[in-house]
Amino acid sequence: MTDLALVLARLDARLDESLARLFELLRIRSISTDPAYAKDCRAAAEWLARDLASIGFSSEVRDTPGHPMVVAHHEGEGPHALFYGHYDVQPVDPIELWESDPFQPEVKDGPHGKVIVGRGASDDKGQLMTFIEALRAYKDVHGKLPCRMTILFEGEEESGSPSLKPFLEANRDELSADFALVCDTGMWDKDTPAISAGLRGLVGEEVTVRAASRDLHSGLYGGAAANPIHILSKILADLHDAEGRVTIPGFYDGVEETPPEILKSWQELGGSGEDFLRSVGLSVPSGEKGRSVLELTWARPTAEVNGITGGYTGEGFKTVIAAKASAKISFRLVHRQDPETIRSAFRSFVKERIPDDCRVSFKEHGGSPAIQLSYDSPLLNAAKKALTEEWPKPAVIIAMGGSIPVVGDFRNSLGMESLLTGFALADDRIHSPNEKYDLASFHKGQRSWARILAALGGKA
Amino acid sequence: MTDLALVLARLDARLDESLARLFELLRIRSISTDPAYAKDCRAAAEWLARDLASIGFSSEVRDTPGHPMVVAHHEGEGPHALFYGHYDVQPVDPIELWESDPFQPEVKDGPHGKVIVGRGASDDKGQLMTFIEALRAYKDVHGKLPCRMTILFEGEEESGSPSLKPFLEANRDELSADFALVCDTGMWDKDTPAISAGLRGLVGEEVTVRAASRDLHSGLYGGAAANPIHILSKILADLHDAEGRVTIPGFYDGVEETPPEILKSWQELGGSGEDFLRSVGLSVPSGEKGRSVLELTWARPTAEVNGITGGYTGEGFKTVIAAKASAKISFRLVHRQDPETIRSAFRSFVKERIPDDCRVSFKEHGGSPAIQLSYDSPLLNAAKKALTEEWPKPAVIIAMGGSIPVVGDFRNSLGMESLLTGFALADDRIHSPNEKYDLASFHKGQRSWARILAALGGKA
Repeated sequence: MTDLALVLARLDARLDESLARLFELLRIRSISTDPAYAKDCRAAAEWLARDLASIGFSSEVRDTPGHPMVVAHHEGEGPHALFYGHYDVQPVDPIELWESDPFQPEVKDGPHGKVIVGRGASDDKGQLMTFIEALRAYKDVHGKLPCRMTILFEGEEESGSPSLKPFLEANRDELSADFALVCDTGMWDKDTPAISAGLRGLVGEEVTVRAASRDLHSGLYGGAAANPIHILSKILADLHDAEGRVTIPGFYDGVEETPPEILKSWQELGGSGEDFLRSVGLSVPSGEKGRSVLELTWARPTAEVNGITGGYTGEGFKTVIAAKASAKISFRLVHRQDPETIRSAFRSFVKERIPDDCRVSFKEHGGSPAIQLSYDSPLLNAAKKALTEEWPKPAVIIAMGGSIPVVGDFRNSLGMESLLTGFALADDRIHSPNEKYDLASFHKGQRSWARILAALGGKA
Repeated sequence: MTDLALVLARLDARLDESLARLFELLRIRSISTDPAYAKDCRAAAEWLARDLASIGFSSEVRDTPGHPMVVAHHEGEGPHALFYGHYDVQPVDPIELWESDPFQPEVKDGPHGKVIVGRGASDDKGQLMTFIEALRAYKDVHGKLPCRMTILFEGEEESGSPSLKPFLEANRDELSADFALVCDTGMWDKDTPAISAGLRGLVGEEVTVRAASRDLHSGLYGGAAANPIHILSKILADLHDAEGRVTIPGFYDGVEETPPEILKSWQELGGSGEDFLRSVGLSVPSGEKGRSVLELTWARPTAEVNGITGGYTGEGFKTVIAAKASAKISFRLVHRQDPETIRSAFRSFVKERIPDDCRVSFKEHGGSPAIQLSYDSPLLNAAKKALTEEWPKPAVIIAMGGSIPVVGDFRNSLGMESLLTGFALADDRIHSPNEKYDLASFHKGQRSWARILAALGGKA
């Protein structure tokens, strides 16, 4: 048997023991948002530090202004990897909708095989334990690890991660590695593993158009006085052309076309993009014409109005011409689009459309560039190959329409790229009653990490 | 001396007596909106009924569910005219800003001659008494009136006229005349009398665009899911073309071009249109290009968005794609535009712009056609000639951008056209502390009505 085959066999043989360890962790009520559970959060951190120590890690529970971090290190021959997960969980309300105690995990029959039911079973305790079990098996079989490892577990992911960025900055040298591995995402479907290579960035802007010095009577002034709602509507309408493209000059600078083989793989994911729209009552893809729903949400930039208000919006009617109107607008960025260039181009675009006797003001609401793991990155391709060997269908390289703050923090604070993969399924009910994690996700997730670690360490 | 000259001479000779009568009426605290003054309102009605009886009218105070009406009749040789005014006044708050007791009228020095100061001096007791004094002088001199007269005074004009329309309906035969005379408007300036020949109509609509079945995360769905704020903004932007014209098909059906001589007279009123914008902090006329501010607000129809709301409008930012967005829109109508045709054309215009997987709903907020006294109406031209003979500058035929409900009620309930003229000035501070009426307005207003009555009765 190869090095890897021995590890996989060990994982298969010890599944029940790994499940018992997960259950111990799931019984700890580590709800981060509720101060009543602060001791439970610390208990979860301590449990993880002890478990990592039992594999041979030098591990510590480190205090923060909030819940503690777990930091652990282990020598290894290959590259240096930082693994990230979070031990905190969401509250359990509404508790009456749970069919069993959220903190007394059980294995039950699920829609496609056995499932582990309990708060955190999927998000993120079940997921992070797939990685720890892979490490344990590797160490048990070979007495060493295929990569040099640093592990970081936080306890505030479900409550905004306030301590994470300062902790990364304060421990930059200790936590910097060649790359990060993050296990907090999902499969495409139960047979198809997925790696998220792209995360869109974001620019938030608030624009306020002011016309007359006060609200006006539309009978007396209507037809002659500038109406800021008209001006704003026109600007917002002008943001997209008839093809659905954003019209701000320079907006597409830095946007790359997605490689044809990636687009083809997305196409082969089938009609799921349209199903995705159908699930929220829609059927016609909006946005840029000639591109699939998956490409539009994963690999194309957007301009979206998130809110608008002006004039009288209460019950009934008031014939007023408002003195001002405002909108909140966000831009999702991809690839190498620069947030501050986009912000500045947007402001110029708006200013050009303001009549001489009206005024406009802007308020900034954050900005972050997109994250894109290069499609020809060796890290990505090693993981893709490893996952493809484990699961019934080949792994797909996907992207995410939104951001995952920790990935941005790893890049910005530690200069590291992240590989995002995980084994959650869309029906896991994370954050909801009766959260579950497929036993297959837990078992094959462990095997997947063993394969990825072996590949990264040159042992596969 | 002519018949008319004798009447004018009588008015000049008896000005002090007419002022004493006005003071009696001004001392009555007929604040209609405050139930504490209900007795005062009745006292004002009774005072007017007595005064009209003293001229030979058969007059009555008629109860309504609110404050009473005064109805009075007098025979005459000419056409039958209904004169309308209101005896109720606005509250006097903030009382501390009055320089004298609002119900102890005084003659003081004003910006351009003597002024009568007191609540109601201009709106509308001073104005309605100009008409009564003209009748009195005519009767005194000739023993008869040049027109058959019906007089209607209401006591709820400052609180929404709830009893007026039912009263007109219930007394249709008694109150129907050949035309109505309304004295509740103003001069163009202190030397230039004005007749309001046009009042714009109104159609109110509320439109709600719905897209997804719930609010969506703009990261996950942005770029593929329809955004109702975008759809609505586009519709609102489409409402006007680059020339400021409303683009709804058929919108201008029934709109007439204002006669060149009227436009010329408006032009000769000078830069006042632009001053009007400047007073509210604007300088560039919006709306249809190539037309003056006066024409735009008096004689052209509009589409105005009075309110808009959608998505997140609170503090900070939320990356949401809203499930719905809505706007309140009003159309000001002129000439023969039909409210229901406009409403229907607008709804078709909107529906055509709704994507197949989105929905739209409408809510009606009232509709009334414009009122336009024909520019070649003998009534209008007789009054214009009469006013021109009295004042330093020729009378101007103007219009009003908004509506005056009583004029619509006269047309709709009694089938009568109304002639609107009056002698208030822009600096009369109606509804505010230190309300005044120029003594010249009171005196020359009486003389103006004498001239108009003579003209209408064929005696001038």
